[in-house]
Amino acid sequence: MPKSDSKDLDVKNISFINDIKSIVVIGPSKKREYFFLKNHAEYFKGPVYAVHPTVDEIPGFDKNNIFHTIQEIPDIVDFAFIAVPPSQILKIIDDCVKKKVKLVTVFTSEFSDSGTEEGIALEKELLKRAQNKLRILGPNGLGIYYPKLGIAWRPGFPTIPGDIGFIAQSGGICNIAIYGASALGINFSKVFSFGNGADLDFVDLLYFLSKDKETKIILCYLEGIKEGRIDDLKQVLEQNKKPIIVLKGGQSETGSIAAKTHTASISGDNRLWEAFLRQFNIINVDSLEQLLYTARLIDFYGCFELNNLAVFSISGGYGVILVDLLEKAGMNIPPFSSDVQDKLKSKFFLPGTSSKNPLDLAAQFFFGNNVYEIIDLALSDKKIDGLILDMPSFYLKPVFNSKDNQDFEANMIESLNLGHKHNKPLIPIIQRLNNPEERERISKKLIERKVPVFGDPLEFIPLLSKITNYKKRINHSKLNL
Amino acid sequence: MPKSDSKDLDVKNISFINDIKSIVVIGPSKKREYFFLKNHAEYFKGPVYAVHPTVDEIPGFDKNNIFHTIQEIPDIVDFAFIAVPPSQILKIIDDCVKKKVKLVTVFTSEFSDSGTEEGIALEKELLKRAQNKLRILGPNGLGIYYPKLGIAWRPGFPTIPGDIGFIAQSGGICNIAIYGASALGINFSKVFSFGNGADLDFVDLLYFLSKDKETKIILCYLEGIKEGRIDDLKQVLEQNKKPIIVLKGGQSETGSIAAKTHTASISGDNRLWEAFLRQFNIINVDSLEQLLYTARLIDFYGCFELNNLAVFSISGGYGVILVDLLEKAGMNIPPFSSDVQDKLKSKFFLPGTSSKNPLDLAAQFFFGNNVYEIIDLALSDKKIDGLILDMPSFYLKPVFNSKDNQDFEANMIESLNLGHKHNKPLIPIIQRLNNPEERERISKKLIERKVPVFGDPLEFIPLLSKITNYKKRINHSKLNL
Repeated sequence: MPKSDSKDLDVKNISFINDIKSIVVIGPSKKREYFFLKNHAEYFKGPVYAVHPTVDEIPGFDKNNIFHTIQEIPDIVDFAFIAVPPSQILKIIDDCVKKKVKLVTVFTSEFSDSGTEEGIALEKELLKRAQNKLRILGPNGLGIYYPKLGIAWRPGFPTIPGDIGFIAQSGGICNIAIYGASALGINFSKVFSFGNGADLDFVDLLYFLSKDKETKIILCYLEGIKEGRIDDLKQVLEQNKKPIIVLKGGQSETGSIAAKTHTASISGDNRLWEAFLRQFNIINVDSLEQLLYTARLIDFYGCFELNNLAVFSISGGYGVILVDLLEKAGMNIPPFSSDVQDKLKSKFFLPGTSSKNPLDLAAQFFFGNNVYEIIDLALSDKKIDGLILDMPSFYLKPVFNSKDNQDFEANMIESLNLGHKHNKPLIPIIQRLNNPEERERISKKLIERKVPVFGDPLEFIPLLSKITNYKKRINHSKLNL
Repeated sequence: MPKSDSKDLDVKNISFINDIKSIVVIGPSKKREYFFLKNHAEYFKGPVYAVHPTVDEIPGFDKNNIFHTIQEIPDIVDFAFIAVPPSQILKIIDDCVKKKVKLVTVFTSEFSDSGTEEGIALEKELLKRAQNKLRILGPNGLGIYYPKLGIAWRPGFPTIPGDIGFIAQSGGICNIAIYGASALGINFSKVFSFGNGADLDFVDLLYFLSKDKETKIILCYLEGIKEGRIDDLKQVLEQNKKPIIVLKGGQSETGSIAAKTHTASISGDNRLWEAFLRQFNIINVDSLEQLLYTARLIDFYGCFELNNLAVFSISGGYGVILVDLLEKAGMNIPPFSSDVQDKLKSKFFLPGTSSKNPLDLAAQFFFGNNVYEIIDLALSDKKIDGLILDMPSFYLKPVFNSKDNQDFEANMIESLNLGHKHNKPLIPIIQRLNNPEERERISKKLIERKVPVFGDPLEFIPLLSKITNYKKRINHSKLNL
C-alpha cells in the first residue's frame, strides 16, 4: 500500500475509507446476541457479511450472507470488524490479506494492552502478518464510526453525518461523545477508536482528518504519543489548516512530548505540553464536556474572536455575575455606541430595568414584546462582537405565558436566533438549576436552529477565550505571511 | 428596640423573626392579580390580613380579613409586606409603627436605587419614621422567605424547611436560588432579600444567621459593603462558627473592603478581597451555581477534608480525565492499602477492568453484581477520604437492564449511598451529555438519599478543594487554641 506523497512525512494513506462498499463482521458472538454484527448490519448501506466457522443461522440476518471463512464470500470486501479470540487472530488476518480487505478493526484485546510478553509479541506478529497490505484499527479498539456510510459499532448511534472528526484510543470515550453529540446538536464526520494503535495511530488518523473534505473540526482525546512519531506529528500540524481541539489524558505521559521539545529554559511536563499546543495553535481543554462544547460553539458560529460583549440579563444580579466571569476570562462589557444606546433607551419602559450594557430587562422580558428589537439593536453595534443572555428556567413555566403573551415562546426563540442574522455569537444560558422538562423542550428548539444553549455560565465562558485566542493567532499568522 | 448585647458590635436584634404569628399585606394590587397577597396567604400558617384603602373584596380571600387601614385590624400584627406607591410609603410606615408591627418588607422601589435626590431623601425619611421601633427589609427588596412559618413571596416556593440560610440584596438571585434548591435536594432555613438595605443590612442579617439555631450553613450573594460597616462585619465574622460561602458580584465594589484592609504590600482589589476572605475562612465561589452546589456538598456530607480519593470509572478514559482534574485541584489518587487492594483484586474478573485506583469497572459494572462490595471495600480503606464515580447516562437506558440485572438500578442506588455508611463523601457523576429523562429519574432517587449527583466533573471538582481548605483551616485554628 503506498505511503503518502509527502517525502519526509511517514503517514499511512487511508483515503479509501470514504469508499467502503462492503463489510464483514468476523466472529459474531451468540453470547453477546450478535451485538457487533447487528449494529453494523442495521446502519450500513451496502452488503454486510458474517463469518463464523460453525454458525449457519443468525436470527434476523440473511442466511445467504453467512460464511464459514472470508474466502467463501463471493464479492469484494473492503472492511472487516474482527472480534475473535486472540488465539485465532493471526489466521483471520492472513485470510483478510488474501481476500484483499483494505481495513480491519481488531476489537479483540489482550495484546500489548495486557502488558504481558505474549501479548506484546502477538501484537508485533499481527502487524507482520498484515504485510502493510491492509490497515488495522486496534487491536483493543472499536474502529470506525462513519455515519455517512452507516458504519457504527453500537446501537442507537446517530445516523446524521456532520463535519466534526474525533480521534481517541478509548472506545468508551468515543461512546460518550457519540451518544452525547446528538443531544448537543452536533454531528460527526468520522470517529476513530484506534485502541493500541499497532498500525494506524494518532498521527495517521490526524493526518487523514486534516485532509478529509468531510471534516472541518478535529477533536482528539489523547493519552500519549509514541516518541518516534513526534516529528511526523509536527509535520502534520504544520500542514494543518483546521481547528484542532485536544483533551490530554494522563499527565505523566506528556514526557514523550517533553523529550522532543525540551529547551533548557522550560521545566515541567505540563508547561512543555502547553508550549507544544501553543506552538501549533491547538485548543486545549480540560474535560470531555469542554471538548464537545468547544466543537459545538465552532460548529454553530465558526471560529470567532470575542473582545467586546453585550450581556442581556433578566435578573440584574445574575447579569452582574456574568459580567464578572466574562471580564475575568479576558473579555470586555463596554458601553454601547452612543447612537445604539439612544435607540436602546427608547425601548426600556419598566422601572428596575437598565438599557446600558449589561442590559437588565427584568419583568419587561415578559411584558415588553420587544426583546427581538433590543437584541437586534445590541448586536447591530459595531463595537459588539457577541451577546450572552441569561434566563432562569422557572420563567419557562406556562404560568408566565399570559393571554398577552401567547407568542412569548415563539418570539423568544426567534430573538435568540439573532446571532445568526448578525453573524455574531449569541449564547443563551437557560439556567439548569430547576425546571428540567421545560428547559429540555426549549433547548431542543434552539439547538435545531444552531443556537448553542448552555445551563451554567462556567460551562462555556472559559471556552470563549480559548476560541478567541485560536482565532487571534490565526489572524496574526496571516498578517505575518 | 434594643440593640444586641455585644458592647461594641452595632447590629440590630431581629431574633423575634422566629416567632412571627400574623402577617398583613399592604397594597395588594388587582392589576398584579393580588400576587403577593395570594402567595403569603397560601403558605402562612397563621392569620393573613390585607390592607387597601378602597378594596373590599378579593377573589378567594376571606372578606373579614380585608381592612382599609392597618389600625382597623383587631389583632396583633407582627410582619407587614408593603407594596404601595412611593408617595404613600411614609404614611404606611407611621401606621405600622403605631400598630407595633415588628418587621416590614418594603417592596416598593424608586428610593436610593433610583439614584435621584428625591429617592435618596425619601429613603432617609423612611428610616426616620420607623423610629428604630420597627425593622425594615428593603426598600426595593422582597424581604423574607421562611418556609418553617410559611412566609413566601412567590408561588411554588418549597414548603420544606432546611438548615441553609441565604442573604442577598437582589430578589431575582433569591428567586433562582429558592426555585433551584429543591431540585438540588437542599432546603433553606431563611432567605433574605434586603434590597437597598436602608435599615437591616448585610451585617445585621449575617449576624442573625450566625446565631440562628435553625441555620447551619450561610450563603451570601454580596455586591458591596458600606464602608462604615466593615468593623462590625469583622466582629461578626470573628464570632461566627458556621461555614459561610460567598459569591461576590461587581468586582469594582470591593474597593470598600480594600480601603479597610489595605496594607502597603498588597495591591489590587481582588487580592485584598481574597485576603479578607482568607482571614475569616470564608469560602469564595464564582457563580450562583457554585454557591448552591457547595452548600449541597456540605449539607449532605458535612464539612469534609479530601486529601486522598478513590476514583471509580466505567470508562477507563473518563477515569483518566477525572484523575487529572482531581490532581490538578490538589487531591491525590493513591494506591489502595495492600490488604484492601488484595480484596479488591478478587472482585474483578472481566478483561479490560482494573482493580487499582482509579478503579475501572468497564462492562463488569452491569454484569458483576458486586459494585456494592467494590465501593464498600474502597471506602473501607483508611487511606481513602472519599470516592468519585462516573457513569455515562446512556447506560441508564433500560436496554442495559437485562434479565440478569432486574435489580440493577436498585443495587446501583444502594451502592451510591455507601458514602453515608462510611461517613465519607461519595460523589457520582451521571454524565449530562445525553439521556436527560433517565438521568433525571435516577438523580431524584439519589438526591432523596442525600447523594449529591452531578452532571459534569468541572461543576464540583473546584468546590472540593474549597471545602477541604475551609476544613483544614478550622482544624488548624483548633490546634492553635
